[in-house]
Amino acid sequence: MDIREIWKELGIDLERHDELLEALPEVYEEIFLSQENRPERMSYFDEVVADIHGARVRELYEMRQEGKPILGTFCVYVPEEIVLAAGGVCVGLCGGAEFPIPDAEKYLPRDLCPLIKSSFGFLVSRLCPYCQVATVIVGENTCDGKKKMYEIMSEHKDVYVMEMPQVKDEEGLEYWHEQLIKFKEFVEELSGNEITYESLLDAIERVNAKREAFRKLYELRKHDPAPISGRDANLIAQIAFYDDVDRFTEKVNELNEELEKRVEEGEGVAEEAPRILVAGTPMPIPHWKLLYVVESCGAVVVCEESCTGTRYFEREVSTEGDDVEDLIKNIAEAYMETKCAIFTPNDERVKDIIKKYKEWNCDGVILYNLKFCQPYAVEHSKIESRLREEGIPALKLESDYSEEDVEQLKTRIETFLESIA
Amino acid sequence: MDIREIWKELGIDLERHDELLEALPEVYEEIFLSQENRPERMSYFDEVVADIHGARVRELYEMRQEGKPILGTFCVYVPEEIVLAAGGVCVGLCGGAEFPIPDAEKYLPRDLCPLIKSSFGFLVSRLCPYCQVATVIVGENTCDGKKKMYEIMSEHKDVYVMEMPQVKDEEGLEYWHEQLIKFKEFVEELSGNEITYESLLDAIERVNAKREAFRKLYELRKHDPAPISGRDANLIAQIAFYDDVDRFTEKVNELNEELEKRVEEGEGVAEEAPRILVAGTPMPIPHWKLLYVVESCGAVVVCEESCTGTRYFEREVSTEGDDVEDLIKNIAEAYMETKCAIFTPNDERVKDIIKKYKEWNCDGVILYNLKFCQPYAVEHSKIESRLREEGIPALKLESDYSEEDVEQLKTRIETFLESIA
Repeated sequence: MDIREIWKELGIDLERHDELLEALPEVYEEIFLSQENRPERMSYFDEVVADIHGARVRELYEMRQEGKPILGTFCVYVPEEIVLAAGGVCVGLCGGAEFPIPDAEKYLPRDLCPLIKSSFGFLVSRLCPYCQVATVIVGENTCDGKKKMYEIMSEHKDVYVMEMPQVKDEEGLEYWHEQLIKFKEFVEELSGNEITYESLLDAIERVNAKREAFRKLYELRKHDPAPISGRDANLIAQIAFYDDVDRFTEKVNELNEELEKRVEEGEGVAEEAPRILVAGTPMPIPHWKLLYVVESCGAVVVCEESCTGTRYFEREVSTEGDDVEDLIKNIAEAYMETKCAIFTPNDERVKDIIKKYKEWNCDGVILYNLKFCQPYAVEHSKIESRLREEGIPALKLESDYSEEDVEQLKTRIETFLESIA
Repeated sequence: MDIREIWKELGIDLERHDELLEALPEVYEEIFLSQENRPERMSYFDEVVADIHGARVRELYEMRQEGKPILGTFCVYVPEEIVLAAGGVCVGLCGGAEFPIPDAEKYLPRDLCPLIKSSFGFLVSRLCPYCQVATVIVGENTCDGKKKMYEIMSEHKDVYVMEMPQVKDEEGLEYWHEQLIKFKEFVEELSGNEITYESLLDAIERVNAKREAFRKLYELRKHDPAPISGRDANLIAQIAFYDDVDRFTEKVNELNEELEKRVEEGEGVAEEAPRILVAGTPMPIPHWKLLYVVESCGAVVVCEESCTGTRYFEREVSTEGDDVEDLIKNIAEAYMETKCAIFTPNDERVKDIIKKYKEWNCDGVILYNLKFCQPYAVEHSKIESRLREEGIPALKLESDYSEEDVEQLKTRIETFLESIA
C-alpha cells in the first residue's frame, strides 16, 4: 500500500500535508546536513526525518491493523513501559511546527504556549498521521494550558487524561501511584491483554536500555571537543518519542561507538567553542531554531536539561520486586523524579542545573522558555538569580515557533557569548 | 496610636503608600458616589473604602498584639472557618491595583496575570498593610502562575501553601480533605489553640451567616429593575475578603432590608437597562473598571459568577456531624463545589452560567478574563461556543489593571449591547 493511500485512509488533509512537508528538506539541509565533520552514523536519524511521516507511520498503521493499541502522547510522564507491556505502542505526537497554529487559534486563546497550540492544531487540521493513527490520546494534567486544552481536544478525539500531583511529598507520590494503577487498567482494557510480571519486566528493561543508550550519548558529550553537535543530540531525543524502542536503542548505541572513537582521537565538532547548557522547555521536531542559532554563533550546546534531553532519560526504573504491583511502584517512583517546573517547590531542578553546568564543563547556561509557558517562565526568573549567585553566566530567552525573532535571538546570544569569552 | 505610626511599625513604605492612596477618593467619587438613586446603606461600605488601610488594619494590628494569628489569603479555597475556630482571622490581601506591578516585574515575568503580579508587588514594595500585619500568608496551588509565584514569595515572607487537586473525583476529594486536616493542624500550632467541635461549629455558623446574607443580596438582584448596581454589589464582595465576619454580615443584612423595600416599591437603579451576567476571573479592589464601563454604557450587571461574586458564597457548609472530623469533612465537600477553572473537566461551570443567565433574567453574558489567566482563557473559548449553541448572547473580554484599554472596552461593550437590544 502506497503511503499516500495510508494517509488518505487515516483522514489526513493531503493537500495541506504536502504543503507542511514541502519546506522540510531545505531547512534540514541547512540546519543538519550542512554541518562539517558530522558523525557518519547520524545517517539513520537523517533517514528517519527524511521520511518523517512515512515508514514509521506505516509500521504503526500495520500494528493498528493487527489490533495493537497506539497511544499518542505529549509528555514524558506517560509511562511507555506500561503501554509496551500490554503489547501497545507509545508515540509522541506532532507539536513542534508553526504551520497548524492558526487552526488551533480558532479554538484556543492566542496567549498560550506554541507547543499546546501546535499539538491541538495538528489534530483539528488532520495534519499529523501519528495523531490520526493513534487509538487514543493520553493527556496529563501537567500545566494549566495542557490541562484545559485536553478538555477541548476530547471533543475531537478520544482522550484519556492522567491526573498529576503538584507536590512531590508522600501523598503526592501515593496519588501518582494510584494514577499509574488506573492507567494500567485502562491500557489492559484497551489492548485486551493482561499486563504480567514478565511482560512488564521486559518492557522496563527495554525502555531502560533506551535510557542507558542516551546516558552514554550524553556522557560522551562531556568531552572537549564535543564529539557531536547539540542540534544532532537534540534531534535524537526528538526522534526517541516516536521511533521503535529497540531499533532506536540499537541505532543510538551504534552512534555511541563512533563517538567513543572520536573522543579517543580527540576529534569533535567544534574546537574551543564556548560550551553551553540549555535548560528549559521541550523542543519538539522541527523546533530546531534555538540550538541552531546558538551553534551558528560559534558555541556548542553540550547538554539539554529538557524533556527533549536529560529529563527524558535520567530516571531509571528499578527492576527489583516480585510482582506487577512492585514494578508499577518502581515506575511511579522513577517518573516522579523528573524535575518538571509544574512541581512546587522544585528546588532540586536548580541544583540539577548547577550540577550539569559543572559536569558538562559548561561556560554558560541558556534558560529557554517557550512563550506563555508560565511554570518555566516563573521558575527561570528564580533560577536566573540563583545562577548569578553561583557566578554562573546565564541568559534567559523566550521564543516560539516563528522565524520572526531569529535576528533578535542571534544578537542576544552573540552578546552573551562575548560576555563569557 | 496614630494609624501612620502603625503603618510605620508594620514596615510600610510610607511615601509610596501615600502616592498609592492619593488617587482613590477621586476614582471612588466618579465610579461609586456619583451614582444616582443609590441605596443609602451603601454608606457603611463607602466608609470602609474611604478608610481602606485604616480602621481594619488597626483592628488586625491590635489582634496581632493580643497574639491572634492573622492569615493573609488570595483565594476562596482557604477555609476561613478553620482559622476562625482557632481564634485567628483570615484577611484577603491587596492584589487589585496596577501601582506595584512594576515592582513585581523585577522578579516575575511580564506575561503573568495582573492579580498575581499585583499581589506579589504589594508584598515586595511593602504597600499592603494587610500583608505586613499578617502572621503568615496562605497560598494554594490553584493555577500555575500562583503556584510558582508562591515559591518566590516565600523568599520574602512566611508562606504556607495548601495543595489542591485538579480533578473532582473521589480521590481528588480525599486528597483535598487531607489538605484541610493538615491545614487545621497548622492553624492549631500557629495559634496555640486546639480547634474543638464547638469552636468549629460556631465558626461554620458565622461564615454560613455571611454567605446567607450574600445569597439574599444576590436574590434581590433578580428583580427588575435591579435594586442595586453591579459595581456596588461587587464592592461588597470585595470587602467581604477582609472585613470582620459578623459586622460585615450585619451590614449586608441591613442593606438587604433596604433593598427589599425597594423591590416592593418597584424602585431600582436602572430602568429597562439590559441585564448582564459577568462570568470569569475575580476583580479585587480597586479593579472596578469592567463593571463601571458596562454600567456606563447603559447596562446593569445583575450577577457576577466570580470569586468576587457567587463563587465566594454559594457553598454552604453543613453543620451535620458529631465531631471535628465530621465538620472538616463538611468543609472539604462544600469548598470542593466551587467551580474554579483550575479543575478539569469543569462542565458544571458551563451549566451553572446558563442557569444563572436564566435565573437572573439576563440579556447577555460577558465572559471576563484577566490577561494571561490561562485556565479561564481556555475555558471561556469553550464556554463561548456552548453559549452560542444555547442562543445566549456572549461577549468574551480580556483586560488587566491598566486604564489604557477603557475606550476599546467601551466600544466593544456598546457594540455588544446594541446587538442584544
